[in-house]
Amino acid sequence: MEYQRLIDRILLETKPLAKNGKVASYIPALAEVSPEKYGISISTLERQRYNTGDHDVLFSIQSISKVFTFSLAYARLGHKIWERTGREPSGTAFNSLIQLEHEHGIPRNPFINAGAIVVADILLSIFPDPKKVLLDYVRELANNESINYDENVAFSEKASGHRNFALAHFMKSFGNIQNSVEDVLDIYFHQCSLALTTDQLACSFLFLANDGVNPHNNRQILTASQAKRLKALMLTTGLYNESGDFAFRVGMPGKSGVGGGIVAVIPNLLSIATWSPPLNEMGNSVAGFEALERFTTYSGKSVF
Amino acid sequence: MEYQRLIDRILLETKPLAKNGKVASYIPALAEVSPEKYGISISTLERQRYNTGDHDVLFSIQSISKVFTFSLAYARLGHKIWERTGREPSGTAFNSLIQLEHEHGIPRNPFINAGAIVVADILLSIFPDPKKVLLDYVRELANNESINYDENVAFSEKASGHRNFALAHFMKSFGNIQNSVEDVLDIYFHQCSLALTTDQLACSFLFLANDGVNPHNNRQILTASQAKRLKALMLTTGLYNESGDFAFRVGMPGKSGVGGGIVAVIPNLLSIATWSPPLNEMGNSVAGFEALERFTTYSGKSVF
Amino acid sequence: MEYQRLIDRILLETKPLAKNGKVASYIPALAEVSPEKYGISISTLERQRYNTGDHDVLFSIQSISKVFTFSLAYARLGHKIWERTGREPSGTAFNSLIQLEHEHGIPRNPFINAGAIVVADILLSIFPDPKKVLLDYVRELANNESINYDENVAFSEKASGHRNFALAHFMKSFGNIQNSVEDVLDIYFHQCSLALTTDQLACSFLFLANDGVNPHNNRQILTASQAKRLKALMLTTGLYNESGDFAFRVGMPGKSGVGGGIVAVIPNLLSIATWSPPLNEMGNSVAGFEALERFTTYSGKSVF
Amino acid sequence: MEYQRLIDRILLETKPLAKNGKVASYIPALAEVSPEKYGISISTLERQRYNTGDHDVLFSIQSISKVFTFSLAYARLGHKIWERTGREPSGTAFNSLIQLEHEHGIPRNPFINAGAIVVADILLSIFPDPKKVLLDYVRELANNESINYDENVAFSEKASGHRNFALAHFMKSFGNIQNSVEDVLDIYFHQCSLALTTDQLACSFLFLANDGVNPHNNRQILTASQAKRLKALMLTTGLYNESGDFAFRVGMPGKSGVGGGIVAVIPNLLSIATWSPPLNEMGNSVAGFEALERFTTYSGKSVF
Repeated sequence: MEYQRLIDRILLETKPLAKNGKVASYIPALAEVSPEKYGISISTLERQRYNTGDHDVLFSIQSISKVFTFSLAYARLGHKIWERTGREPSGTAFNSLIQLEHEHGIPRNPFINAGAIVVADILLSIFPDPKKVLLDYVRELANNESINYDENVAFSEKASGHRNFALAHFMKSFGNIQNSVEDVLDIYFHQCSLALTTDQLACSFLFLANDGVNPHNNRQILTASQAKRLKALMLTTGLYNESGDFAFRVGMPGKSGVGGGIVAVIPNLLSIATWSPPLNEMGNSVAGFEALERFTTYSGKSVF
Repeated sequence: MEYQRLIDRILLETKPLAKNGKVASYIPALAEVSPEKYGISISTLERQRYNTGDHDVLFSIQSISKVFTFSLAYARLGHKIWERTGREPSGTAFNSLIQLEHEHGIPRNPFINAGAIVVADILLSIFPDPKKVLLDYVRELANNESINYDENVAFSEKASGHRNFALAHFMKSFGNIQNSVEDVLDIYFHQCSLALTTDQLACSFLFLANDGVNPHNNRQILTASQAKRLKALMLTTGLYNESGDFAFRVGMPGKSGVGGGIVAVIPNLLSIATWSPPLNEMGNSVAGFEALERFTTYSGKSVF
Repeated sequence: MEYQRLIDRILLETKPLAKNGKVASYIPALAEVSPEKYGISISTLERQRYNTGDHDVLFSIQSISKVFTFSLAYARLGHKIWERTGREPSGTAFNSLIQLEHEHGIPRNPFINAGAIVVADILLSIFPDPKKVLLDYVRELANNESINYDENVAFSEKASGHRNFALAHFMKSFGNIQNSVEDVLDIYFHQCSLALTTDQLACSFLFLANDGVNPHNNRQILTASQAKRLKALMLTTGLYNESGDFAFRVGMPGKSGVGGGIVAVIPNLLSIATWSPPLNEMGNSVAGFEALERFTTYSGKSVF
Repeated sequence: MEYQRLIDRILLETKPLAKNGKVASYIPALAEVSPEKYGISISTLERQRYNTGDHDVLFSIQSISKVFTFSLAYARLGHKIWERTGREPSGTAFNSLIQLEHEHGIPRNPFINAGAIVVADILLSIFPDPKKVLLDYVRELANNESINYDENVAFSEKASGHRNFALAHFMKSFGNIQNSVEDVLDIYFHQCSLALTTDQLACSFLFLANDGVNPHNNRQILTASQAKRLKALMLTTGLYNESGDFAFRVGMPGKSGVGGGIVAVIPNLLSIATWSPPLNEMGNSVAGFEALERFTTYSGKSVF
């Protein structure tokens, strides 16, 4: 198979780059992960799956979970969600408070920490048990009932989450958090702890390449228009302050997490997930970023 | 023809929106333009052209010219151009000095004023007569020898261009302008004064939908990879501080100018240009923005 | 008595200005105070006291307490205190997080909220029961055993103190808060709730006009050099973002609070306290500010 | 004489500190000055003068001239001057454009570059020949007809003054510069080039210790109230971003320049000038700053 040879080659070529990055160390559970781990998975609309490397090892998806929670809230609220968060690139670090102060507690977009915390607050106002709803949602998208939170990671996130507590209290001072800070962050720290393999991750994003329809059960998760808009948001804001560079070099809507994962989609074609823990200074996986650039270069496929 | 009916309908539907905007007034030549003017043009890779409204009236393309100058410099310098300008969304107003101070004279991207002034400086270092080179370049891309600068506009730009003088001197204090500020801004003010019709504008951007090859004469203007990258840059930074919103609502790489023009492309398909002078607070044409959103919604075509 | 006639006149002249301000409303206990209240008190090194208006009504001293806590910590730590807080004017609003982010969790000075929270953290690390120590300290300085916290105010401060929680968590993320955020803010909210009369307030600041020696019991509270430095700090940073203006118009080291109090000293001479609840947009008492300007103008006395 | 012994001792003690600083190097005329130069001068209201070290060598007073031009404009415009510049500490570097952008072209105070450029613009609107008026003014204050501009320095300032051109054009874009940028900066670059000795400098500031009256000819330069206000401004903003620290450690209204000079006054008593070219990172003379701190510590005299 062509895709199989392609990802085998790319894994081989880009694996050495991992040594230029540093594994996230702010919580023990992340710091302990081997920097050698590396997996790549592709899932196509033709129901083919291609895997290479450590594609069956669970890792912490961290910020990638922001796409799941946003999608869940967006399907419910529609346009009204934009009263609570913006949709512009932030131009500043992912956990900055500066932008938030200038714009009176409205985060720049739902994929920076502040925006994701607002989304967690929204879920808490909608659902009696948002953690369970979210877990069911991800399991359905990935077509895999075994997916779960890593309570150990969630607990560590909380213990070292002073900056996120600051963000939440700060937005609450502007009236943009409606539930208790403790409860909102409990959701947020749990969503960050979701553990998936690259194979599961690629599967779970396939609905975005399919005009919002979950290909596993044909359920409409988002309208086609909403799916288009979510992909635009991923393209412009999905890789923290390196989103412009990712769009420029890779040219696919994507989302990264400090656990070392990146996932991206090509509309009407496929989704692809990479996992290599060492990060660059922007918080994105060094090897994964390069792998995705090579994928678009070698295959000639991107959104442009 | 389907595209013809589509743009006729969109023009009719969105024309009333112009009254919600304000024509740029900082120079007389722009302030005198009628807010009623409205034209839409499409140019396809199949060599079809579709026009409606004031598609044959010359207007000042202003910041849209930044794509031409950048493309010209990028083809010459390649990757080395990124030593002089960034490629990330700015997150601040198009003529802000704040970002520039924080980042030591390196503009965020080539489509904010500071970035375009650096590009003009680059052209001045490469070409003995950059204004003539640029004019020939645009004429070739538009396949139209009649295109010209509007000296009246260029003169007015200079007379009221204190902010741009500030930007250029500021960057020179950081060493990121190599020629005289006067000479660099002379190029910049002239490029802004380029006068095209929507029909000519759509034609001149078709090479970006064609993997960098000028379809009028089959000359390779940019490599396919460079064209892809330039489109990514347009998508993330082409509409000032509203770029994220344009990507979100419209989903096409585009570029706007305060003369009221917007141009956008769909890879492998077409380019589309709109012109309606009244602007929203972000400096983008109110009717043109909405027209392009409807175009992608009605046609179901976008990059996503 | 000359001072008596002077403050009687000033009270009469400036009382009408109160209607140009607004009483702080973020907690009920402050919002309920009558805007008509107005008292002025002078305490001299010759042991004379002059009072006019509502000089015997208790009010919430709020940020004025920051001088007490800083003085207490400064006497213990000396120069080492500057490892935890700066001593420059902030140039931004009193509860801003922006400066804090730019300077990695080190507040600009001990009289903005962030700085006072760091000082509370310091007191908590020094004393087993800092709230009791602080109360004894203020009672000794004011020579009045009846002074107390207003638990009602302290409770309300906490309930609406999201911004202060944000500041504390934010600094903790930089390692500049060493105790639990809850415990540190408990001290902070209590110090803000201290209730004094203008007469008690003037008395309690007299040690600063006396080279650091409490004139009531001749105890050295600060060294002469420390007292000089604390007065310099008050002059440059004591009235939030209006400190420069206060120095300019009044010319005395002073400190204000959102309860409507202001206290100021003239070295080797006297201390003066005013209380009028309506505040200007900077958070300073409108009538009190003007009263102190007139006091220096009419008396010809200032530090300059 | 006591003051004589005092400054002799301080010069001896603090001279070695100069090696911790760096001589300003942005123009040749400043870079060539020997870092070994060191002079201290005191001028008292009792008409005594005390000098030590290189007190009779001319040096470039640079930003110290901002006090002269401001005083000249203030006497003419009175309160109306505050429509053109603020009077708060800037909180940012002396040549920052950030504050200026946030506050729409109104500089924070007249002692940062932007503020002094506005003052130069004001002088140009008042006087037909402001450079001559300023020179006469300084000669009168210093009681010395030999004082002059250093045309060599003025020329160099202009050649490397891109940042100041940026500031002036930027403010003109907000309408806060009324004359041509070239003409305004010609005044500004000349005022910076004024060459005085420490003895002359101390003499020329004595009017500020004397309630605004020039003690050499008894002419009222400023009203007593204006003199008080100008001193307050110096205390809060006179040493760039280190003003708070200077107030804290020294406790005198002062003004520094990148030529290595600092001048300060004690109301009703004396003025003191120091000159040692090596600067700290904030742009203030290392030895001079320390000398003034020791002067207040040893003499026990300050405004506090």
